[in-house]
Amino acid sequence: MTAIQVDRLVRAQALLRRKNIDALLVSQPHNRRYLSGYTAPDHGIQETSGFLLIPGDGQPFLLTDSRFTLQAEAEAPLYRVELYSKGLIKLLERLQKKIGFRALAFESDYFLHSAFLRLADFCAKNRLILRPESGLIEQMRLIKDEDELRLLRQSTALNEQVFQSVHRTIEPGMTEREIALAIELTMREMGAEGPSFDTIVAFGTNAARPHAVPTDRELQAGDLVLIDMGLVFKGYCSDMTRTFVFGKPDQTYIDRHRLVRRAMLAGLGAIRAGVTGAAVDRAARQVLADGGYGNAFGHGLGHGVGIAVHEEPRLSPRWRKQLRAGMVVTVEPGLYLADWGGIRLENMAVVTEQGCEVLNRDTTGLDL
Amino acid sequence: MTAIQVDRLVRAQALLRRKNIDALLVSQPHNRRYLSGYTAPDHGIQETSGFLLIPGDGQPFLLTDSRFTLQAEAEAPLYRVELYSKGLIKLLERLQKKIGFRALAFESDYFLHSAFLRLADFCAKNRLILRPESGLIEQMRLIKDEDELRLLRQSTALNEQVFQSVHRTIEPGMTEREIALAIELTMREMGAEGPSFDTIVAFGTNAARPHAVPTDRELQAGDLVLIDMGLVFKGYCSDMTRTFVFGKPDQTYIDRHRLVRRAMLAGLGAIRAGVTGAAVDRAARQVLADGGYGNAFGHGLGHGVGIAVHEEPRLSPRWRKQLRAGMVVTVEPGLYLADWGGIRLENMAVVTEQGCEVLNRDTTGLDL
Repeated sequence: MTAIQVDRLVRAQALLRRKNIDALLVSQPHNRRYLSGYTAPDHGIQETSGFLLIPGDGQPFLLTDSRFTLQAEAEAPLYRVELYSKGLIKLLERLQKKIGFRALAFESDYFLHSAFLRLADFCAKNRLILRPESGLIEQMRLIKDEDELRLLRQSTALNEQVFQSVHRTIEPGMTEREIALAIELTMREMGAEGPSFDTIVAFGTNAARPHAVPTDRELQAGDLVLIDMGLVFKGYCSDMTRTFVFGKPDQTYIDRHRLVRRAMLAGLGAIRAGVTGAAVDRAARQVLADGGYGNAFGHGLGHGVGIAVHEEPRLSPRWRKQLRAGMVVTVEPGLYLADWGGIRLENMAVVTEQGCEVLNRDTTGLDL
Repeated sequence: MTAIQVDRLVRAQALLRRKNIDALLVSQPHNRRYLSGYTAPDHGIQETSGFLLIPGDGQPFLLTDSRFTLQAEAEAPLYRVELYSKGLIKLLERLQKKIGFRALAFESDYFLHSAFLRLADFCAKNRLILRPESGLIEQMRLIKDEDELRLLRQSTALNEQVFQSVHRTIEPGMTEREIALAIELTMREMGAEGPSFDTIVAFGTNAARPHAVPTDRELQAGDLVLIDMGLVFKGYCSDMTRTFVFGKPDQTYIDRHRLVRRAMLAGLGAIRAGVTGAAVDRAARQVLADGGYGNAFGHGLGHGVGIAVHEEPRLSPRWRKQLRAGMVVTVEPGLYLADWGGIRLENMAVVTEQGCEVLNRDTTGLDL
């Protein structure tokens, strides 16, 4: 891993120098992991596992507390580990005296307002310039290198293996919770770090909630089943949704399913470098609208996936930036009707110059 | 649940009026759940499941997006659900015109700096007063009512049942990951919502990391085993640590284990309403120092537990406020030696006027 981290550090430091930033305080856990290799997650933003302090050149630091010293030293050999036993500000004060930065930047999108107040006070007292920055490291993460694409392909393949393995065992009387639990257990048994988000298993009308939480509802023949699942494999996330009927689907289901599938294919077909996220969203949304379900699809079409399961770019009406080759996105149109249920189908794809490479192979329930 | 939420809402609105706050924007997920009953968690602060907007009196609102509409309406009947399909600021603009608040407060400890910039801009344009607030609702949550204490007792009892059930199955060759997985599976099978934090299972030297992540290390006879686990039961958390030797402990282990146990008992013995968190921490820390391990205990002695597994109060050298009856805390001294391993023992207790009520009954490995 160290060669990758050296490369990323060098690129990050070059970026800081171009922006006239003397030092960047990295608080976002995925950025922290991406740059340093340090894998400790935050248990919520209020329980940070540490910060990176990256000067424009020279020795970078990993700031943490005694719970994480050994892990930080083992995982992030390029970084010098410093403990903030008397608080972050005291440690920054000491490091500022040592390395002498004047313009300090922090990650505005993952920094609490209350922590900002303390940092602003520290900078005012020491006549330092404090600069909120947004998306610096995230921009580096947008385009996946070959190593990352390999891990994303592996993560997706493993996720499909888990899905297919559990799909075979589904039978009447099983509850949504039981299936979700079996999925998350199988993920770990098959070598995943864990789920990349809370697994969604929803039967019938429960599937009308795009973010349904599994309940004790029991599966009956004829129920539609929506499963949205993803796992983390060596730090990289997968995300896939399948909807199928347990038993024989009626014509209403078949028609609606085919419409959502056409919307997914339209979305995938619209992807290529240079097209905006909004345009891809529109291509899929139009299919649903033309089918008479323009109001039944309330969320965006998709999102970037990498170390984070939800990251930029977004495929949504509001994301007007262009896609670039090497980005990885989900395409997940859905149709939600409170009194009936919901259908969502989701694949992942790598944006290429000419179009996209779909990462998924599983076709369970798709060919209806 | 609604009677509890009415009571909490009434108390929150009285608090706002005392503070001259016209409306409070609640972003912290536990505060959101505590006040409204809406259980959706945040998938990280960058993926909020919604906000409460609570005026000093009258109708409160729950602001979310279309993924959560049905869940919000079902779980939070006191709140009027509003969707921010065009962004939070647009919705706040509309609601401000409707209910006419002038002084808007937000939760500084769970509000991103970048979101604050947008909110500040909105307030400046509309000549509103924007007030960062800290700990308003958290202060309400500090003292648990009888209903909450009942759930915390149940959560602890269930956590112990899970521990004992898995403890019986531990045998040589099992890995840390396998045991952690069995624990989290058993939690769900026995009716928990899930773990309240990532389960720690650490053998031998791995236990020298207070926040060890389970590995594929296999258990051997004579290894020390540290298990730190907690679950969520009906929204309330438990947290317990046990350390034991698989096989026959040597005298070094026995001596160190007894020392940590004495430290835990000293901590529990020091708890009562009116004593500071720092004093309780000191009582336990002194035992370890007197035993010659003053430098081997790097973290605080304990923390509050409720809807959040880590909340105020803190038992730590820096927490100089007094404990009050009805607070619930962990007491978890430890001793960590990189070349040898670690021992941590942790119970939970309710602070009372005269002392404390220990919630734990399990004595596995304690009576050494």
